[in-house]
Amino acid sequence: MAQPATAQQTPADLIVTNARVYTVDDSRPLVEAFAVRNGRIVFTGSAREAASLKGANTKVVDAGGRTIIPGMVDGHAHFNNLAKKLRSVDLVGTRSYDEVIARVVERAKTTPKGQWIIGRGWDQNAWGSTAFPTHDALTAALPDHPVLLERIDGHAQLANMAAMKVAGLTAATKEPSGGKIVRDAKGVPTGVLVDNAEGIVSSKVPTPSIQEWRAMHKDAVKLMHRWGLVGMHDAGASREMIELYEDMAKQKELDLRLYIMISDNAAALTHYFGMGPRSALYDGQVWVRAVKLYADGAMGSRGAALLEPYSDDANNTGLLLSAPAHIQEVAEAGLKAGFQINTHAIGDRGNRVVLDAYEKALDKTPMANHRFRVEHAQILHQDDIPRFAQLGVIPSMQASHQTSDMYWIGKRLGPTRLYGAYAWQSLLQTGVVIPNGSDFPVEEVNPLISFHASIARQDARDWPMGGWFPAERMSREDALRSMTLWPAYAGFQEQEMGSITPGKYADFVILDQDIMKVPAEMVLRTSVLATYLGGRLVYAK
Amino acid sequence: MAQPATAQQTPADLIVTNARVYTVDDSRPLVEAFAVRNGRIVFTGSAREAASLKGANTKVVDAGGRTIIPGMVDGHAHFNNLAKKLRSVDLVGTRSYDEVIARVVERAKTTPKGQWIIGRGWDQNAWGSTAFPTHDALTAALPDHPVLLERIDGHAQLANMAAMKVAGLTAATKEPSGGKIVRDAKGVPTGVLVDNAEGIVSSKVPTPSIQEWRAMHKDAVKLMHRWGLVGMHDAGASREMIELYEDMAKQKELDLRLYIMISDNAAALTHYFGMGPRSALYDGQVWVRAVKLYADGAMGSRGAALLEPYSDDANNTGLLLSAPAHIQEVAEAGLKAGFQINTHAIGDRGNRVVLDAYEKALDKTPMANHRFRVEHAQILHQDDIPRFAQLGVIPSMQASHQTSDMYWIGKRLGPTRLYGAYAWQSLLQTGVVIPNGSDFPVEEVNPLISFHASIARQDARDWPMGGWFPAERMSREDALRSMTLWPAYAGFQEQEMGSITPGKYADFVILDQDIMKVPAEMVLRTSVLATYLGGRLVYAK
Repeated sequence: MAQPATAQQTPADLIVTNARVYTVDDSRPLVEAFAVRNGRIVFTGSAREAASLKGANTKVVDAGGRTIIPGMVDGHAHFNNLAKKLRSVDLVGTRSYDEVIARVVERAKTTPKGQWIIGRGWDQNAWGSTAFPTHDALTAALPDHPVLLERIDGHAQLANMAAMKVAGLTAATKEPSGGKIVRDAKGVPTGVLVDNAEGIVSSKVPTPSIQEWRAMHKDAVKLMHRWGLVGMHDAGASREMIELYEDMAKQKELDLRLYIMISDNAAALTHYFGMGPRSALYDGQVWVRAVKLYADGAMGSRGAALLEPYSDDANNTGLLLSAPAHIQEVAEAGLKAGFQINTHAIGDRGNRVVLDAYEKALDKTPMANHRFRVEHAQILHQDDIPRFAQLGVIPSMQASHQTSDMYWIGKRLGPTRLYGAYAWQSLLQTGVVIPNGSDFPVEEVNPLISFHASIARQDARDWPMGGWFPAERMSREDALRSMTLWPAYAGFQEQEMGSITPGKYADFVILDQDIMKVPAEMVLRTSVLATYLGGRLVYAK
Repeated sequence: MAQPATAQQTPADLIVTNARVYTVDDSRPLVEAFAVRNGRIVFTGSAREAASLKGANTKVVDAGGRTIIPGMVDGHAHFNNLAKKLRSVDLVGTRSYDEVIARVVERAKTTPKGQWIIGRGWDQNAWGSTAFPTHDALTAALPDHPVLLERIDGHAQLANMAAMKVAGLTAATKEPSGGKIVRDAKGVPTGVLVDNAEGIVSSKVPTPSIQEWRAMHKDAVKLMHRWGLVGMHDAGASREMIELYEDMAKQKELDLRLYIMISDNAAALTHYFGMGPRSALYDGQVWVRAVKLYADGAMGSRGAALLEPYSDDANNTGLLLSAPAHIQEVAEAGLKAGFQINTHAIGDRGNRVVLDAYEKALDKTPMANHRFRVEHAQILHQDDIPRFAQLGVIPSMQASHQTSDMYWIGKRLGPTRLYGAYAWQSLLQTGVVIPNGSDFPVEEVNPLISFHASIARQDARDWPMGGWFPAERMSREDALRSMTLWPAYAGFQEQEMGSITPGKYADFVILDQDIMKVPAEMVLRTSVLATYLGGRLVYAK
């Protein structure tokens, strides 16, 4: 029951005013101000009304007429991999070996001697010569740190002498099957290791300590805040990592609404199913009530399972990574334990296998409100599109994959199957909601890349004109829901977050442009000016 | 915090399935089924999931693929006047005096002898002769009931002999000033009374007893249910009527979500302000937390207060029915007591007077979430359009007035002022919500008339082509909100009703057409097949 007006005149902790606030709450969709108390929204409406809640200790934020949206949530991403990636030196875009070395030297300044430095992203094809580099210059510049730098495609690595020493890599080292140790004329390793030879050094890179992990994850959260994310759905976490996240949350060091999918590991599932679903732990920071499974591989490597062969590989229908019976079995156990099951499926066969397995599990253990998900749901047979709504299964889709893949996906699939590719609008019409995401670090963290892809189906250069299969675009209203309210629904959190609504967490983002109004091509030029989590400023530009 | 899935497997009381459900809940906008327990929604989603909540005592409604929307609420109407109108014999459209008499005789069959029968709507111009009727045939057919029949324009009445006897109307009766007693050649009254003579008989019609009122209101509620209404905002009720409604609700005889505006009466306001705002009384049936004031008159009678004279009456700027100071005074008292103030304002001056009075009251007693309203807000000066959002004032508008008035409103106002007439879209763009309504019995009860007017700004014959000032049309999504979630917001009820959302009252309507998809011209041919209030069937076609 709504409180009488007088009861709401307790002063607010925070008033945000002079803004264009898209609340994603249809009972009051557009307001100019809101107020926060104890980390939750207590009022949305006019600036005048908000001002009446100002007390001696109320902080007032004047948004200067800027646009505010609910804090965004990435519905599918990889926390641990982002943390790892941030630890690595980013070598993407380097134009010379010297530039690679300079970036590593820069990192070495803040890295204790003897500690490994990992880098990713070099490409000698961009350096003027296509010859692999040799370790000498790297070793000379970095004598005291083991260094291992991965090529942009992951199929080759460059180690310095310190790293080779730790690994015991010498002229005497034998090549493993399927791998190559590049050597000079005298047979001495040059530092470059190809494919299966990579493990010789990389296996020696120490696993980060828990303290290192903690620092790395904090950096990852900072990056999310910088892009307006207040939460993410972690698409696969080990028990060790979940315990770290819970500890960080307990110590108030997480600063994230983290919806965890437990990785498919029998011991971990037994452990967490035994505890039962847990929500909003540590004051709304951690949810442990979901499981991540894998049905198939990916499209780029032709590992996605298709019903008909790849158009560019006539004898290949891709790979199933899990037996359908396994998906069904875990789904049944999840239904009984009250856990949501979220299965990776890219190809049309992969998706059908998951829907079939879910259907069998639900036949055995009928259940309302299970909110089972298919992660990616990229390529769907037309017959399977309505099955999501019918089974109550949520397609969890990352719009940025569409704009990354559109250049080559037609070669893999031929024209007909593209009508079921990234078919957001067809799915929405059946009555599902779509939590959007980035799959970071596979794609960029910036959630507005997926927002832009959702409304335009164009890349950052506005290609193709009119959008790629534009009938499948989302409206801006739906695209905004897909970054806010719909991930909340997909995480059983819609009563707590996903909109700027009295009673919900005060999570919001101030943008420098109105993404609901500017031409689509301006969306990617939008900056996050500030991110607030539970009414607390966690990022300011 | 969301319940774990397993906790939700308690069997439902009611499952509604095989439907196209527009929930007006963006966390799950379109579903095919939902479940109800203890009068509230407990699940929305797929038919399969809903079926899993079926127990031994669960009632299942198969909607046969039909459209379901939340129970509609009329944001501004007159309960008592509808009740009165229903008690009268409807004589509109009668083609002869015989037909008039036949309808009254029909009513007499169920009316105890000696009890008055009131009728409305005869028009002798439609009978072939333009002469007034005389009472003889009516008296012959109805010797035992006093009968009083009002002409369609309200400017003449026909009484039978029994009624004249009660009133003591004889050849000796003198005519009042401004009135006429029609007499035969011998000076004997014929039964017809014109203008100020009407009171001679009508003042003798007894006020209904409380038991009669109760029966009349029950009939009015039945009619609302028949048109898919589960609630209404009563735009002005006396203490006597409020006490009747509360008693009906207590006895479970109301069957309505009745949001009451207390009529502007000092004693009543003192009484109810003393009690404080009361919400969801008697299991969600009665809300007493609002006051109805009047700023000006109406447009048809040139009583609406304008800033500039009427275009068709150069010396007339309309009437203010309340002193601005009175509106301000009651508004201040309302702010202090926690009551919402809802003031009738039609003309641009009337609206400005109300906004000014509210602004002064809010300057003195700043308050968040007051949700003060302007009822009608029909004609607005461009400068005043943004003031609603700025002050936090809700424009409560009845779209059917636009389609009723559009034929002649241009004569009253001239072309320029029409840009601020029924300016729904201009208002929505500023960030307000608009509760829609009918103002029944001024307009028809059927809320789809206002839905149709909102999206088309055309009459039932699809005139004018393209719609009248079509830039002010609402989207269908907004029009649906204006009949459901936005009246709930305007009544501080958005957490309890207005959408098909788990936790809210299970109020919903089954329609025979999809009003969100059919061409606009089909909307008025839509029938309500069933209306449910709190999960209970209250109307079935």
